[in-house]
Amino acid sequence: SRGYSITLLPGDGIGPEVVSVAKDALALAGSYEGIEFRFREMMVGGAALDGVGIPLPEETLEVAKQSDAVLLGAIGGYKWDANEKHLKPETGLLQLRAGLGVFANLRPATVLPQLIDSSTLKREVAEGVDIMVVRELTGGIYFGKPRGFGHNERGEDIGFNTEVYSASEIDRIARVAFEVARKRQGKLCSVDKANVLEASMLWRRRVTALATEFPDIQLSHMYVDNAAMQLVRDPKQFDTIVTNNIFGDILSDEASMLTGSIGMLPSASVSESGPGLFEPIHGSAPDIAGQDKANPLATVLSAAMLLRYGLGEENAAKRIENAVIETLDRGFRTGDIFSTGMTLVGCRRMGEEVLKCM
Amino acid sequence: SRGYSITLLPGDGIGPEVVSVAKDALALAGSYEGIEFRFREMMVGGAALDGVGIPLPEETLEVAKQSDAVLLGAIGGYKWDANEKHLKPETGLLQLRAGLGVFANLRPATVLPQLIDSSTLKREVAEGVDIMVVRELTGGIYFGKPRGFGHNERGEDIGFNTEVYSASEIDRIARVAFEVARKRQGKLCSVDKANVLEASMLWRRRVTALATEFPDIQLSHMYVDNAAMQLVRDPKQFDTIVTNNIFGDILSDEASMLTGSIGMLPSASVSESGPGLFEPIHGSAPDIAGQDKANPLATVLSAAMLLRYGLGEENAAKRIENAVIETLDRGFRTGDIFSTGMTLVGCRRMGEEVLKCM
Ligand SMILES: CC(C)[C@H](C(=O)O)[C@@H](O)C(=O)O
Ligand SMILES: CC(C)[C@H](C(=O)O)[C@@H](O)C(=O)O
Repeated sequence: SRGYSITLLPGDGIGPEVVSVAKDALALAGSYEGIEFRFREMMVGGAALDGVGIPLPEETLEVAKQSDAVLLGAIGGYKWDANEKHLKPETGLLQLRAGLGVFANLRPATVLPQLIDSSTLKREVAEGVDIMVVRELTGGIYFGKPRGFGHNERGEDIGFNTEVYSASEIDRIARVAFEVARKRQGKLCSVDKANVLEASMLWRRRVTALATEFPDIQLSHMYVDNAAMQLVRDPKQFDTIVTNNIFGDILSDEASMLTGSIGMLPSASVSESGPGLFEPIHGSAPDIAGQDKANPLATVLSAAMLLRYGLGEENAAKRIENAVIETLDRGFRTGDIFSTGMTLVGCRRMGEEVLKCM
Repeated sequence: SRGYSITLLPGDGIGPEVVSVAKDALALAGSYEGIEFRFREMMVGGAALDGVGIPLPEETLEVAKQSDAVLLGAIGGYKWDANEKHLKPETGLLQLRAGLGVFANLRPATVLPQLIDSSTLKREVAEGVDIMVVRELTGGIYFGKPRGFGHNERGEDIGFNTEVYSASEIDRIARVAFEVARKRQGKLCSVDKANVLEASMLWRRRVTALATEFPDIQLSHMYVDNAAMQLVRDPKQFDTIVTNNIFGDILSDEASMLTGSIGMLPSASVSESGPGLFEPIHGSAPDIAGQDKANPLATVLSAAMLLRYGLGEENAAKRIENAVIETLDRGFRTGDIFSTGMTLVGCRRMGEEVLKCM
């Protein structure tokens, strides 16, 4: 039987509740497929700030690096909102991404037929939406230097950041995106602001050049402002989208919300080698933390992405995904996706129902 | 009788058609209100590239600066898409904004009851949406230095831009936004990425400090990724939004598309003194240019913003806006906003119907 070590990072708010459910789902799916998991729980984010005073303890990063995959719950909360930058929970997450080198963030936004009424879009617009946003995750304005505070020639305070991409950073994320598109509908839309930004001009040039290696993929380019519009106007026109770190942050969240059920959406962040980082896209929801109200399905589906993209265990991944679909078909709903006629359940019970379907 | 000089910049694609209609609307509204306009038409964008080889001729900027207000149609088109940066039509527009110093871009996104079915949002979500995005227009990553192309320490090509804001740049746009909110519902949401970017941290600090001068305004802060989601989830929660140049580019386009009728949406770009720049938010639509199919109402409503924000001529502004509403009520529709039972008309005819209602 195959064995893998998994680092669990429950984090803050509802993180521990949803990670606990996903851990059980992994363990059970594994037992059916002859896979054994060794789990190790570590601190990150606000939990680590409270515990040891920094948002990403060295030991957490070391353990994560040594493991086969990392499953994260959520980080952040009001409590630490006023912290200085190096003591923000978010900084721990950024350090974790950089530390693991997970430059490719895959964020599916899929409208499930069972949940189509949760979307604020008209039914005919939402129906069948199935987008994968491939976001560059370890470069661009998030990490670019120089950055900081200073003074301009008139002695005024300034704040500044650098958007910068190198040819190889663009090539490697584009390559991932072309390959993802190949496994999907074969359509890739690269989003940039090449009519204004030099960083985007290089982006467009490199993506265009790489396209010759993927003649089977239909590549298009779109400006980011237009993409933000087109997602609302006709989301079905998109299959796979590739974009930089900050545009990906914005557009993947917009695309997610089109589905109306962000409590359902997972994400995968991967590197060329080394463990991937898997996490739900929703936040830590401090207002409902510890009340057994959270929707664990985004984290359960992140565990499925962990199996597929992190470990290559397609069967176990499918087993989890099918169990989630069946659980929805059987009418179980947490509060965030509830509609009349359905059975309202809490986080733990939702997890139990998923396990029953495996 | 009062007199104003207006610079007309028809630009590219459908620009000339829609500006011609708006010019007639201005002239007629003026004649009812005892206002005389002197119009002067100048070249910008692709038209200027074709005419004199640069996207913003010096003479155009000079004439614009000497006038009381500038009305722009649209710029750009496939023809010039592959041009180098300094020969792009867009560069002419950016030079015009910088040259006029119009740092505050006001972009309303209003769902008209007559056109609510054009929205891809469910009726109950779209109904009553009335958002004003105040976008910083002459700073940030659009203009920040250093910028350009170069090589990193490994000799690879890089492209880079600088996001930078100074205290006074933030203060002046925030002040405009607080004042706009005051004339609206008194709610201002400042959008940034202060959990990651230093430029945003300064932004949030300055906006928060300025709020003490506007105790009657309810100020909130939101991260840009969340704002992109919230606009889709519940756009009615927003009254006035203030944000930087690039986030404003993205979010104002997203907000516009929520209305389903971007052919209806005007914009105003103003400075502390000097002429403002008024333009529809839609593009140059080269595919329908010269076919009398364009919707001129966004430009007509931009002329109304010109009267209100550029010249302080509230009565004339209202006269144009009322005529547009009445024209819609009478059932006239261009192709982009057509629905069964309405009367399909072209650009010129739509303009004539608006004039009849004045
Ligand atoms: C928490 C924050 C730093 C993070 C980001 O901006 O990347 C989040 O919004 C995300 O998308 O995972
Ligand atoms: C054409 C382009 C340079 C421009 C911008 O990005 O500002 C446009 O998208 C806009 O919003 O007016």
